[in-house]
Amino acid sequence: MAEDCLFCKIIAGDIPSRKVYSDESVYAFHDINPAAPTHILVIPKKHLKAVNAAGSEDEALLGKLLLAANKIAEQEGLADEGFRYVINTGDQGGQTVYHLHLHILGGRQCTWPPG
Amino acid sequence: MAEDCLFCKIIAGDIPSRKVYSDESVYAFHDINPAAPTHILVIPKKHLKAVNAAGSEDEALLGKLLLAANKIAEQEGLADEGFRYVINTGDQGGQTVYHLHLHILGGRQCTWPPG
Repeated sequence: MAEDCLFCKIIAGDIPSRKVYSDESVYAFHDINPAAPTHILVIPKKHLKAVNAAGSEDEALLGKLLLAANKIAEQEGLADEGFRYVINTGDQGGQTVYHLHLHILGGRQCTWPPG
Repeated sequence: MAEDCLFCKIIAGDIPSRKVYSDESVYAFHDINPAAPTHILVIPKKHLKAVNAAGSEDEALLGKLLLAANKIAEQEGLADEGFRYVINTGDQGGQTVYHLHLHILGGRQCTWPPG
């Protein structure tokens, strides 16, 4: 856990969130500012400031993050119609919280380009 | 390799691509219809029709896909300014080729919402 990290505080329960999923390695909750009818953030419990802060020792953790996202998409009823995953890194990526998070967007037609 | 899969044919070299990266598990090439100054597709060499076709046996492969994307983002000079990863699944996600692919977009400011 990193001090002063919003998402570490959410994982710890110090800041409330609308939890969707939790396991040993991964936590997921509804985005407070949804960009789609379903908009969920999937985060590793380990503090990584961005996806490219992951090292080879995090290979399994990154795999678990995507597998958990797949489970959540299924659980939320998005699997048949489809959905989009987005990971923002750094300023030009549009990253706003410096704890790795994967956005799941679904429930509407996603367009192209993706922002 | 799946017959009649465009990306399997690209991996096999039967259809040309502007290769960026290749290792045992992952192949990457420039998108022919770029949505950003840098727009690269990162794909597993194993044919998976979509990210949610991955099972628990693919955990390491999914981790390798993200770690390879990180390497490519670094190699392409995107790490300092930032970049976005996008994975589309199914119709509403905007998936057009049914072989799992991760888009790396960089070289411009990404906007929100992500399509």
